Amino acid sequence: MAVVHRHTGQLEWEGVPVGRYPPSKEMQGVSVRWLIGPQEKAPTFALRYFEIEPGGWTSLDRHAHEHGVFILKGRGQVRIEEEWFEVEFGDVIYIPPNEVHQLRSLGDEPLGFLCVIPARERAE
Amino acid sequence: MAVVHRHTGQLEWEGVPVGRYPPSKEMQGVSVRWLIGPQEKAPTFALRYFEIEPGGWTSLDRHAHEHGVFILKGRGQVRIEEEWFEVEFGDVIYIPPNEVHQLRSLGDEPLGFLCVIPARERAE
Repeated sequence: MAVVHRHTGQLEWEGVPVGRYPPSKEMQGVSVRWLIGPQEKAPTFALRYFEIEPGGWTSLDRHAHEHGVFILKGRGQVRIEEEWFEVEFGDVIYIPPNEVHQLRSLGDEPLGFLCVIPARERAE
Repeated sequence: MAVVHRHTGQLEWEGVPVGRYPPSKEMQGVSVRWLIGPQEKAPTFALRYFEIEPGGWTSLDRHAHEHGVFILKGRGQVRIEEEWFEVEFGDVIYIPPNEVHQLRSLGDEPLGFLCVIPARERAE
């Protein structure tokens, strides 16, 4: 079934709950909204919106699937292998399979970004 | 290889050329930028940025692959089957396989949106 998730402003959407990761050494201040995810069951991909609070970071990851990232708000840094890139609104990052990666926020505003993954990596 | 496409402002990106469709009855005023596409060769999906000029529209399509759409600028309408939805910044539309769909711009500004598709649908 087709789904339109209306944006309610401030990057919140109708019918899309916020998932929060428990604080840990691996990940700090990270929330996720599945915009096209377990509910929509797209055959090929999933689309999530992440926010990283000021001073927060995602886990240092390396896995067999790729990421497509589009920065929507705030400023941050993306690590790919040994290199860090500064990013802000509109920047697009392609993280290929099996490359080490991590994101963190910079400044006083949360870093908000879209992240595309293969559907098979979707939590059901 | 990892790729960072820096946003140069106004939804243009370094290293991303603009493709334009020839005007036709089927499609009017539509341009496409492959943000994660033939160059990046992501195994699973492709990410494109489309703009529809004021008064323009995409072709009325129906195909076996799904779309994930995220509106970035302007206002427009999305048709899914027989229904039209008004959309603007932040709205997310999931178009499942085999559902008739079309987009058109509304107002004086181009309608700009991200569109995710399966990698197998990517032009090489």
